[in-house]
Amino acid sequence: MEKYPSFLLENAINEFAKLPGIGRKTALRLVFHSLKRTTKEVENFGRAIIALRNEINYCKVCYNICDNEICDICSNTSRDISLICVVENIKEVMAIENTKQFHGLYHVLGGVISPMEGIGPGDLQIKSLIERVKNGKVREIILALSTTMEGDTTNFYIYRKISNINSVKISTLARGVSIGDEIEYTDEITLGKSILNRIDFSKTIVLQH
Amino acid sequence: MEKYPSFLLENAINEFAKLPGIGRKTALRLVFHSLKRTTKEVENFGRAIIALRNEINYCKVCYNICDNEICDICSNTSRDISLICVVENIKEVMAIENTKQFHGLYHVLGGVISPMEGIGPGDLQIKSLIERVKNGKVREIILALSTTMEGDTTNFYIYRKISNINSVKISTLARGVSIGDEIEYTDEITLGKSILNRIDFSKTIVLQH
Repeated sequence: MEKYPSFLLENAINEFAKLPGIGRKTALRLVFHSLKRTTKEVENFGRAIIALRNEINYCKVCYNICDNEICDICSNTSRDISLICVVENIKEVMAIENTKQFHGLYHVLGGVISPMEGIGPGDLQIKSLIERVKNGKVREIILALSTTMEGDTTNFYIYRKISNINSVKISTLARGVSIGDEIEYTDEITLGKSILNRIDFSKTIVLQH
Repeated sequence: MEKYPSFLLENAINEFAKLPGIGRKTALRLVFHSLKRTTKEVENFGRAIIALRNEINYCKVCYNICDNEICDICSNTSRDISLICVVENIKEVMAIENTKQFHGLYHVLGGVISPMEGIGPGDLQIKSLIERVKNGKVREIILALSTTMEGDTTNFYIYRKISNINSVKISTLARGVSIGDEIEYTDEITLGKSILNRIDFSKTIVLQH
């Protein structure tokens, strides 16, 4: 462990080094960079991170991150409120929004069921999803979780809790060969599913327009 | 540019992305990490960086970073006050301190003369170095700047300003083949200098003890 000539310096290096992917060498570089910036710039930086943690809101409907009580997506009256896409985190919301192909609402679980990490159904926004399905005019739920063991477990848990409510339709993302992928290098499970769930070619022509 | 659902989120991502070596993807990851930490942890982080910038002191004698008026090295009475090692930054102070071979004091310039970056002698702690040489009991100055064009320029500038004061001796770091380096792969200039400045072999035996 190196000896630093100042407690403030050492403390700042330690704090930077706590961030994921940042070692002590990088932390030292970031600290020297901070010393070269103006007081105002460094205060803006520090306060932005503190404000993020202290003042961030979660939408009361879909639990997405937002600045108000209800997020922009849920309060957008032109969106289809009968369609809910269930995702793990805000990152997936942003990814799906970027496709511009989805015009329903979201429900952000805040993770997936993972006994290894001690995350049970009670730690996720599953109860609130069930309430939305019970109270709302929901016609279809799209499960858009990762295709991992944890994602599959969470999918199945939600399916069991929701399938008997109000005859709601439960769907999931299509799995198949990615656009641009070579068939030769596609993994067996994906390729197998893409054959089982093959689609009418005339439909793909329509989709491309 | 991606659209974020929250101003606080976007602001925090922008602030992280201003740091050197951190792009928007990494900034997003750091922001999500911050959201998972406790309020206390994030406040400690933000405040440590702000405090570093606002409260950091520079030693009134050598201009090294420190918490008090005078740094631990300058206030250590067992060190040789007649020997001053001139360095660019605190990083070099730490590197030289780690060798445990130097027992004099330092003088931290805060950079090197670089007309390209608009850094002149007036932006560095050169005047204060001249004052130290004039007023103090300095016997020798060791110039330990980088062997770059800017470092050489700064060395020469300091040499011209100091060489006629109080018959002070001005030395510089030995240049030569690094320990563990193969002669075959050593660059020509270094190898040439190591031949010109060759040393008595019997002296190296004494040094190793």
